[in-house]
Amino acid sequence: MTIHVGFLLFPQVQALDLTGPLDVFASLSDVSIHLVWKTLEPIKASSGLVMTPDTTFADCPQLDVLCVPGGYGVGKLMEDAQTLDFIRAHARQARFVTSVCTGSLVLGAAGLLQGRRATTHWAYHDMLAPFGAIAVHDRVVRDGNLFTGGGVTAGIDFALTLVSELFDAEQAQAAQLAIEYAPHPPFDAGSPDTAPASVVELVRTRSANVRAEREAIVERVRTVR
Amino acid sequence: MTIHVGFLLFPQVQALDLTGPLDVFASLSDVSIHLVWKTLEPIKASSGLVMTPDTTFADCPQLDVLCVPGGYGVGKLMEDAQTLDFIRAHARQARFVTSVCTGSLVLGAAGLLQGRRATTHWAYHDMLAPFGAIAVHDRVVRDGNLFTGGGVTAGIDFALTLVSELFDAEQAQAAQLAIEYAPHPPFDAGSPDTAPASVVELVRTRSANVRAEREAIVERVRTVR
Repeated sequence: MTIHVGFLLFPQVQALDLTGPLDVFASLSDVSIHLVWKTLEPIKASSGLVMTPDTTFADCPQLDVLCVPGGYGVGKLMEDAQTLDFIRAHARQARFVTSVCTGSLVLGAAGLLQGRRATTHWAYHDMLAPFGAIAVHDRVVRDGNLFTGGGVTAGIDFALTLVSELFDAEQAQAAQLAIEYAPHPPFDAGSPDTAPASVVELVRTRSANVRAEREAIVERVRTVR
Repeated sequence: MTIHVGFLLFPQVQALDLTGPLDVFASLSDVSIHLVWKTLEPIKASSGLVMTPDTTFADCPQLDVLCVPGGYGVGKLMEDAQTLDFIRAHARQARFVTSVCTGSLVLGAAGLLQGRRATTHWAYHDMLAPFGAIAVHDRVVRDGNLFTGGGVTAGIDFALTLVSELFDAEQAQAAQLAIEYAPHPPFDAGSPDTAPASVVELVRTRSANVRAEREAIVERVRTVR
């Protein structure tokens, strides 16, 4: 039986949030992938990479897995009624509702995190609570049929975890081996807990504008008052 | 001073080979990225993801970094004179000649691995020697201005290593933190040395056709006889 996995594709998505899970799922048989957006016009990722959706909201089949990646474009999605309606409608029917990175903030804006354990990119973790979520600091967080991944590369860990749930451990291990995921980062700086303070500060400074913009959006659309 | 980084974009590229390094470099200031192919027509990655090049071979500026990702499409590139000519021409002028995954086999076909230490995806590692390379089992291998990464996700480790060389450790650590690269795979199956034997066998079986096709190509184009 074919498993239908739908990824939201939107302007200013972080390409790596998408392609980590995408290439994990694409390495399996019996998976049909849908790259879903309002139209089939190409969109531009935050890196400038131009990617083309293959499924519109209107034509999207019922999904086993709905996955919302993150990226700069998330702020706009959090106030976009058409996108939130699409997510809510498919979340009701999907076996698993999932996100990578700041994609969870879009799930929050859609009202899907109320009372549920969730995570997001470390720099935006405090934005989960305004949506009623129980914020958890972990790379992959499961609450029932809700799987949320941490920042960007956590999408790979998330996808392998979900594959072991959808299929079995052997399929997940095969996917991991196919992408040679035996990571060996040259530095121990992938988390604010281990990175030098000056590096944390540098990244915070670089993302200050995006944070300020999102803070204002969260204040407008928050579901817990 | 702007650092020009050119990624080869081609039909049946593995999207994650590209987007790992792409999103690392895109997180830095002073980097200009070029997604290079023969034409500006969209291409389809191995996952089905459609991506659009932004620079043609003819219009590509001089590059500081030339990077060839891997993917199913590599076999065809190894016999494609136009692509090999482009790679050779830019490799002569680039500060760094690099690859991710089976992209190194294309560098090999272009004659750029002769007598040099290099790596590739574990399942194709034996295909380095026919190009005169000194095959090294490591996730990132440097030989002078030649940097080669292992399979797929090794592209992230490769890119962070190269950023520390092009800029400094702080910039590499900031890039790592921005993509929250503190990996925590749910299984220890990312290398044939640690994966269960049945999983290695499963992945080898799935890639048997691609291997057979590439073996024939390597035999035709090998540079060491």
